[in-house]
Amino acid sequence: MIHETNYSIRTFHTDGFGHVNNSRHLELLEEARWQYAESIGLVTMLAERNLGFIIVDLRIRFRIPIFEGEQIKVTTCLKTLGSASGEVEQLVYKNREARVALKSLFHFVLINRDTGDSIPIDGAIRELLIGVIEP
Amino acid sequence: MIHETNYSIRTFHTDGFGHVNNSRHLELLEEARWQYAESIGLVTMLAERNLGFIIVDLRIRFRIPIFEGEQIKVTTCLKTLGSASGEVEQLVYKNREARVALKSLFHFVLINRDTGDSIPIDGAIRELLIGVIEP
Amino acid sequence: MIHETNYSIRTFHTDGFGHVNNSRHLELLEEARWQYAESIGLVTMLAERNLGFIIVDLRIRFRIPIFEGEQIKVTTCLKTLGSASGEVEQLVYKNREARVALKSLFHFVLINRDTGDSIPIDGAIRELLIGVIEP
Amino acid sequence: MIHETNYSIRTFHTDGFGHVNNSRHLELLEEARWQYAESIGLVTMLAERNLGFIIVDLRIRFRIPIFEGEQIKVTTCLKTLGSASGEVEQLVYKNREARVALKSLFHFVLINRDTGDSIPIDGAIRELLIGVIEP
Repeated sequence: MIHETNYSIRTFHTDGFGHVNNSRHLELLEEARWQYAESIGLVTMLAERNLGFIIVDLRIRFRIPIFEGEQIKVTTCLKTLGSASGEVEQLVYKNREARVALKSLFHFVLINRDTGDSIPIDGAIRELLIGVIEP
Repeated sequence: MIHETNYSIRTFHTDGFGHVNNSRHLELLEEARWQYAESIGLVTMLAERNLGFIIVDLRIRFRIPIFEGEQIKVTTCLKTLGSASGEVEQLVYKNREARVALKSLFHFVLINRDTGDSIPIDGAIRELLIGVIEP
Repeated sequence: MIHETNYSIRTFHTDGFGHVNNSRHLELLEEARWQYAESIGLVTMLAERNLGFIIVDLRIRFRIPIFEGEQIKVTTCLKTLGSASGEVEQLVYKNREARVALKSLFHFVLINRDTGDSIPIDGAIRELLIGVIEP
Repeated sequence: MIHETNYSIRTFHTDGFGHVNNSRHLELLEEARWQYAESIGLVTMLAERNLGFIIVDLRIRFRIPIFEGEQIKVTTCLKTLGSASGEVEQLVYKNREARVALKSLFHFVLINRDTGDSIPIDGAIRELLIGVIEP
């Protein structure tokens, strides 16, 4: 399953170079991951168990700068799932271009939000994620 | 007592208009309030008691835009202190200009961080604040 | 005309107090103003003329803190329009509460984006805005 | 040459998980790169030539979460320099721990700020950078 989130890039999304800055990109990507998680019922499941996914490693390649006034599409998909971690890939496209503007990979783990400790990804959460992997 | 914090404005502080955006200003002002609080020993005192000051009302007037490459000075001072709230005034100056670039007023209350409830500003915290008011 | 924008509040929208911080609120409010401007055709009109609205004064009253997992609705409406400036009011409601969580007023002016100079709000832009005022 | 930047982590730096979020980390790292660039005279040199360094690839490994109230040290150093690009490594340490909390690598290119085009890193800028490489 590949999820899509669309954004209009505003003046406040861009910096003095006129393009979207790397920290702003991370926020747009994070919101897209949340929308993906919400769309598959994961947000509720995590909240009920007081669990959360946190990022332990991330990589971003910026291929084409993104400017104010552009419409972008973020695709989000789960690529791999291990016993205690997994990888989400997110690509950014400009609406009127086929080329990828940004490519990113996020390595995540599941934590107990009270203790902060990493825990195995099992049970209902594992089942849910197995069903949406797009290798 | 009037506290001063200095910043160099970077490309990433500015937006597509070329100036510092209002939400970024709020972050620079918040960091300046923290430095002020730290300089008078308030941060430690709050942490020991699990208390925090939160903003309940704020007003900002933007008089002169601030651009990349500029050096600014933020002055922070406590203007009033009531039984459960107070007001902090923060002004922003460009280093080479006498005129105020931004004028702001923050109305705060003290809360218990576990419950989120507003509590009276009394005891050692009150004494400390009374000593630094600059009406 | 009163425009509505809806947000789901994520972990990354909140700070160490567990609530949405004031600078984050400003970003959510700014995005809502952009969606309002887009919905009435104003964004295109400004881009064609290389004009922009900038904020010269803002006031926010935080009445009820907003927490992770909550759904909020932001209402945006143009309250007044002068020859060179105007005021936008934005209120934030939690979805399941009738009470206003946050009340804000933004005073704006129109600028030429090349020079940064304030210019009169007239012509087609004035006509458009007159038609949507909600006094 | 290895440059050091120190930060106190505030409530507003952390998110609902209680730790510094990845986009916030990128801002703290970017400010540290600016302070490094300023300390070697690079910021002035770039401004005079209307040039800028932009990030084309970044990688961050988060090893230990960073919490409110902690003091951190960011080390910034230039690791490699090619004809048109280079790599900066930034590590984050908690003040009272020897272990690295975060490890990051930023791949940058030099651009002409008017055109946005990548240009060779040569002349005085190259000389300056060659002198500070810490392979």
